[in-house]
Amino acid sequence: MSEVLAATTPADWRTLDPENTLYLQLPQGRVVIELAPAFAPQHADNLRTLARGKYFDGLAIVRSQDNFVVQWGDPDGKRSLGRARDKLPPEFTVKMTHALPFEPLPDRDGYAPEVGFSQGFPVGRDPAKGEAWLAHCYGMVGAGRGNEADSGSGAELYVVTGHAPRQLDRNIALVGRVVKGMEVLATQPRGSGPMGFYESAERYVPIKSVLVAADVPVAERENLEILRTDTERFRQLVEARRNRRDDWYLVPAGYIDLCNVPIVARPRT
Amino acid sequence: MSEVLAATTPADWRTLDPENTLYLQLPQGRVVIELAPAFAPQHADNLRTLARGKYFDGLAIVRSQDNFVVQWGDPDGKRSLGRARDKLPPEFTVKMTHALPFEPLPDRDGYAPEVGFSQGFPVGRDPAKGEAWLAHCYGMVGAGRGNEADSGSGAELYVVTGHAPRQLDRNIALVGRVVKGMEVLATQPRGSGPMGFYESAERYVPIKSVLVAADVPVAERENLEILRTDTERFRQLVEARRNRRDDWYLVPAGYIDLCNVPIVARPRT
Repeated sequence: MSEVLAATTPADWRTLDPENTLYLQLPQGRVVIELAPAFAPQHADNLRTLARGKYFDGLAIVRSQDNFVVQWGDPDGKRSLGRARDKLPPEFTVKMTHALPFEPLPDRDGYAPEVGFSQGFPVGRDPAKGEAWLAHCYGMVGAGRGNEADSGSGAELYVVTGHAPRQLDRNIALVGRVVKGMEVLATQPRGSGPMGFYESAERYVPIKSVLVAADVPVAERENLEILRTDTERFRQLVEARRNRRDDWYLVPAGYIDLCNVPIVARPRT
Repeated sequence: MSEVLAATTPADWRTLDPENTLYLQLPQGRVVIELAPAFAPQHADNLRTLARGKYFDGLAIVRSQDNFVVQWGDPDGKRSLGRARDKLPPEFTVKMTHALPFEPLPDRDGYAPEVGFSQGFPVGRDPAKGEAWLAHCYGMVGAGRGNEADSGSGAELYVVTGHAPRQLDRNIALVGRVVKGMEVLATQPRGSGPMGFYESAERYVPIKSVLVAADVPVAERENLEILRTDTERFRQLVEARRNRRDDWYLVPAGYIDLCNVPIVARPRT
């Protein structure tokens, strides 16, 4: 893998669109989330509205369930959403169209008829139904909802911190992916309550703010680049991971599952 | 799932064999590891010898790589292994025999021709080769090795703390599984060095001791019970997870991957 990355050229990388990038500002540092408006446009809009209305400022991480998710939002459920909407249509799948890029993985998947990547996100597709959706891999960010499919708004967000809970695919709206700072979220102490909720407010981890990167002065933005998933180089990386050929491996797997493919982000030099 | 567990009877549960149970004693508490002598008998033996020789006492957690593993052992590589062996045969696979229990999962797997459970552990099998092996799911514990296949001894152990790195299957010896205390290991701060190694000794997390449960007074042992994986009840649990039928789920997955099946451990009442 290091050889593949060393052979990349600037054309193999892309930068983040600041209008589609959120900064979750925590005491331990900044977590960078890339939104996926091609899959959840109304959630992306609402998240920008919530962030710009300072909805998240002073709220908290309220849940950390081992091998599952970390979640943040309003523990009291009382804060006004301001100009944001309190319900959104269930953006759980989108229509498969030619306008939506898709680079297939060569291997079969158990949860979806087809899997691959679209604009840097892991996705599943069902050609028979004409549907595509984001997949619940490590680091993916989703919008919590209640029992009603349209009860999510983005006011409550979760991030996958364990083995991919792919059974959630098509059941809830994924809105993006953490591209920097997963180690901060993944190491939050697990909550002792049911489903990993913190039982005491003393355990809450305060959120300083959630910012849209476009609203942050350029000099204070994260300067990251993300490996493109629609290049020959990326296909080489996938193949290098499917069949490890270094001195250490005795038995190359000859297979890779969707959530084992790293989508590399690094500081831009 | 809670319904399936509520319907269990004592016959659906088993207790741990104290001779095959290790206690990793950390400042944050006790981590309980069940060894898998059916798959790695010489590693299990050597681990008992290392533990009883107090090899691990005062060593440290030296590595925490996000979405991969936490590892512990001798950071200086200088401590004597005492009466334990410094190299072991590569117990990466075992022969498939009728004596080795196997409860198949109904679903296909990408990494192995067959997957299922054996005595409470997730396993893969290749009938064409007559081989079975433990699978790298969240919480599985393995013995680090160098480039030589026989260079592992158990003196350096790792635990999977992220999405299952199944490409390691058949390439390294898994020795058991954490049945209590994963939240302590999984939340260790990530190391800033290459592969998540801690760059400063100040970051090391000291190991008080590793004990064989059989050597601990009965009153001080963990009183756990583990859901058996060879029962009709367990098959019901797997099916309940393959096709979630509660009010929240809109689209049951109709599939489960090996490492998404929970092998439940709980305090014995």
